[in-house]
Amino acid sequence: MSSVHPVLLGGTWRASAGLETFTATNPRTTEPIPDRYPISPWAEVEAALQAAEQAFREMLEMPAEVRARFLERYADRIEARRAEIVAMAEAETALPAEPRLNSTELPRTTDQLRQAAAAAREGSWALPTIDRQRNIRSMYRPLGPVAVFGPNNFPLAFNSVAGGDFAAAVAAGCPVIAKANTSHPGTTRLLAEEAFQAVKEAGLPSAAVQLIYRTSHTDGERLVSHPLLGATAYTGSRAAGLVLKAAADRAGKPIYLELSSINPVVVLPGALRERLTKVADDFLGSCLLGTGQFCTNPGLVLLLAGPDTEAFIAEIARRFNAAPVGTLLSAGVLKSLRESIRRLQEAGAEVIAGGQPGGGAGFSHRNTLLKTTGRQFLAQPEAMQTEAFGNESLFVVCRDEDELAAVLEALEGQLTGCFYTDTQGSDDKLYARLEPILRRKVGRLLNDKMPTGVAVSPGMNHGGPYPATGHPGFTAVGIPASLRRFAMLACYDNVRPHRLPPELQDKNPNGRLWRFVDGEWTRS
Amino acid sequence: MSSVHPVLLGGTWRASAGLETFTATNPRTTEPIPDRYPISPWAEVEAALQAAEQAFREMLEMPAEVRARFLERYADRIEARRAEIVAMAEAETALPAEPRLNSTELPRTTDQLRQAAAAAREGSWALPTIDRQRNIRSMYRPLGPVAVFGPNNFPLAFNSVAGGDFAAAVAAGCPVIAKANTSHPGTTRLLAEEAFQAVKEAGLPSAAVQLIYRTSHTDGERLVSHPLLGATAYTGSRAAGLVLKAAADRAGKPIYLELSSINPVVVLPGALRERLTKVADDFLGSCLLGTGQFCTNPGLVLLLAGPDTEAFIAEIARRFNAAPVGTLLSAGVLKSLRESIRRLQEAGAEVIAGGQPGGGAGFSHRNTLLKTTGRQFLAQPEAMQTEAFGNESLFVVCRDEDELAAVLEALEGQLTGCFYTDTQGSDDKLYARLEPILRRKVGRLLNDKMPTGVAVSPGMNHGGPYPATGHPGFTAVGIPASLRRFAMLACYDNVRPHRLPPELQDKNPNGRLWRFVDGEWTRS
Repeated sequence: MSSVHPVLLGGTWRASAGLETFTATNPRTTEPIPDRYPISPWAEVEAALQAAEQAFREMLEMPAEVRARFLERYADRIEARRAEIVAMAEAETALPAEPRLNSTELPRTTDQLRQAAAAAREGSWALPTIDRQRNIRSMYRPLGPVAVFGPNNFPLAFNSVAGGDFAAAVAAGCPVIAKANTSHPGTTRLLAEEAFQAVKEAGLPSAAVQLIYRTSHTDGERLVSHPLLGATAYTGSRAAGLVLKAAADRAGKPIYLELSSINPVVVLPGALRERLTKVADDFLGSCLLGTGQFCTNPGLVLLLAGPDTEAFIAEIARRFNAAPVGTLLSAGVLKSLRESIRRLQEAGAEVIAGGQPGGGAGFSHRNTLLKTTGRQFLAQPEAMQTEAFGNESLFVVCRDEDELAAVLEALEGQLTGCFYTDTQGSDDKLYARLEPILRRKVGRLLNDKMPTGVAVSPGMNHGGPYPATGHPGFTAVGIPASLRRFAMLACYDNVRPHRLPPELQDKNPNGRLWRFVDGEWTRS
Repeated sequence: MSSVHPVLLGGTWRASAGLETFTATNPRTTEPIPDRYPISPWAEVEAALQAAEQAFREMLEMPAEVRARFLERYADRIEARRAEIVAMAEAETALPAEPRLNSTELPRTTDQLRQAAAAAREGSWALPTIDRQRNIRSMYRPLGPVAVFGPNNFPLAFNSVAGGDFAAAVAAGCPVIAKANTSHPGTTRLLAEEAFQAVKEAGLPSAAVQLIYRTSHTDGERLVSHPLLGATAYTGSRAAGLVLKAAADRAGKPIYLELSSINPVVVLPGALRERLTKVADDFLGSCLLGTGQFCTNPGLVLLLAGPDTEAFIAEIARRFNAAPVGTLLSAGVLKSLRESIRRLQEAGAEVIAGGQPGGGAGFSHRNTLLKTTGRQFLAQPEAMQTEAFGNESLFVVCRDEDELAAVLEALEGQLTGCFYTDTQGSDDKLYARLEPILRRKVGRLLNDKMPTGVAVSPGMNHGGPYPATGHPGFTAVGIPASLRRFAMLACYDNVRPHRLPPELQDKNPNGRLWRFVDGEWTRS
């Protein structure tokens, strides 16, 4: 019999009072991993909220340097424990240690933490704005404790206790209550252990970072709508996210959701004529990456009927059949992928490659290519937009430009949308017609590039219109903008100079802070 | 029999198909004003949405200069028709023509329109952000048609077809469907007539501005949740706003609400000792301004027990009794004020002055001062925070500093909060204790100044935590920030240079646009 891992609550690792427990499963072997994790009862969630509130009050009094130091120490510690963390993440997710976990996702995670540290230290994220004549000043200030629900598909870079939402919330000045994704509790535990050490080293309040592994659904709703909570960040399934959204909305609590996206890729005829193989390379590399388990996976490809399109589809089908079949994250992902493919088939899509489970180690499903026509898509646009999370894509062949435009008009909000066009201008007229339609539907528009790389850049938007997210004005990736999700606009009207936060006093506090002073952005 | 005024729909003034009509009432005479206005059936709302969608597509192709020109022409036209507009607003609201409507609110309205024009022309509101190395660029772009529901208390500056929300939405690039406040349809009609002329003069699509006067509540919910709608701005009662919020939230549509606020004013002992009369002057000027019908009206004053506080309360009571009683905006406002006062009395508040309807012309209620103790307040904090919209205020006398802190902790989210303190520092210690509590509850924190002046400044925040508004990160007043409510974050990843919007191309399009390029704000 194995003991149950403790939760990180109020500044200590303590045994959970929860009577129920759960284990993770190794997706490659489909065997349970012995470690047992608790399902926390409401009293623990409430205790976490109370402790986070106290930590928040203390953090408000601390210079940003403390948060910055924490984020950097934490990044260092993750690197120091890299081998163990990567091995655990591989065991729990079946994502390959190399290059994915060790050489891509872990460096991305520590880079995010360090970028967040730099943003916290500089302070410009808060958009300090000063009207000297009227003596009215404002800036973004942290909202309060933030609950982070991480997804299953990025055990490190979107981990609730280490990923982008975590880094942004802490950098903004908010304590985090992390709710582990239940498919990788061990990875989350190792990260939280390092976070907690870094909290102590940096001198943050000890409850600035807390971890619970799981709650009942009802308690999740209570958490996101609790008076002491500042905001929630959630990345996961649409169904579960919408339940949390409804609870948070009723309570007037901000909730930032990343829900679902099928990331349309429009391949115009000139692009295929010019570089069919290159487009196929790009698509394969993107669509089967991580066994297709990316929020930005290209799940929908739109094409115009013609011989190049037929050749392209045949080429992709051939490559899908030839490519190795990866392991999926969990039995749940496999089940959901099967159901989604079935729903697409019921709506009239035809299987061109794959279509059946199996073909790889453990939880796996053959690389699946579906095909339909623009007419069929338009007959059931909702069903045809079913997200099939995994190594699947649906190709829609449109009869003509009007039908292609109509398919784009029928799309829901998406994280991304791409156009592939030729380089000589033969697709430009059609691009000009279609771009305005797709532009409104997507947070990020790409040219000649697949959507799966989400760079941590100030120019990035990892967001988009509903139902891709809950609000089209916010991004989950990209510093400094992602920090502002966890902040309120705080105005100081005629407040005496010595009572102003340093960022809003006449003198620039560190000489590097960007401020909007009397209509001009300045560092002086 | 009078004919029914037409609605402004799809670029023409046309007879409504609605069978039901309504009239406004002159609050001073309590007599109906003869003009009849239609209640639009759903088909008209739907037609407005379709026309707005078409207008939006056209606006996306137009330079910002067209919107800027419209906003300026419109401001000029309002000024040219100033006498008629002011007279109508006075008849419909009983707000005094001088100085309020003619010398304060109308200039504020045209100033907002012109500030919005300047912001649209410059473009910096969109926060264009460029990462040249990765070729990832982003900016805010207009969301789509915006529905504006204006409040009863600012017939010009917050009018749904001329006020701050209208100006911000149009400046951002969104067509507006204005829903008139039913207490001043005539004022709204005159403004819309000028807006429509300005639309034609400036060359905006003719459906860029539309006006309906009233719908059923159900149709209001359908409007704010409609697939073609980009966002909603609502200022009004909490009850009606929350119904719209629920509908918009369910549909994933942004809705910006200004719901209610009692705007606590904390008067610390040193301030009364030092300048009791000055504080009383400030309070009277703010609290009875516009018969107290301001969203930022100081409806709650927090004091520490003592002889100065008793003297202060006696002085305010004396002045409340002596001051002329203004006319309220409507029978509904009077009814609601009476009910709120009754609710406060039931919770234990004592009437010190006024307390009864009447005392002025038409719909009126005596200037009413209520008093309670910190203990009573804390016994029923929710009831004690009932907003009594009108010429009323509740004074809460706290036994000691702990009780005062507890009352602040019990407050809901507010638009504003003020501290009055002495100038020699004797209140500073207590300020330092209380400020962090109040700061988190309010969008705008003031020192030594009452909250009723809401300057149109880049530093302003007219917003605050729920239930003052629906999201603490947005402001309804203050340009450029107010524009971003009606925008989505749009990222361009690897998009070819000639396909980028001018704001995101390497060359600054007008030499004045502020952009965040490779981590630096620059105009070059």
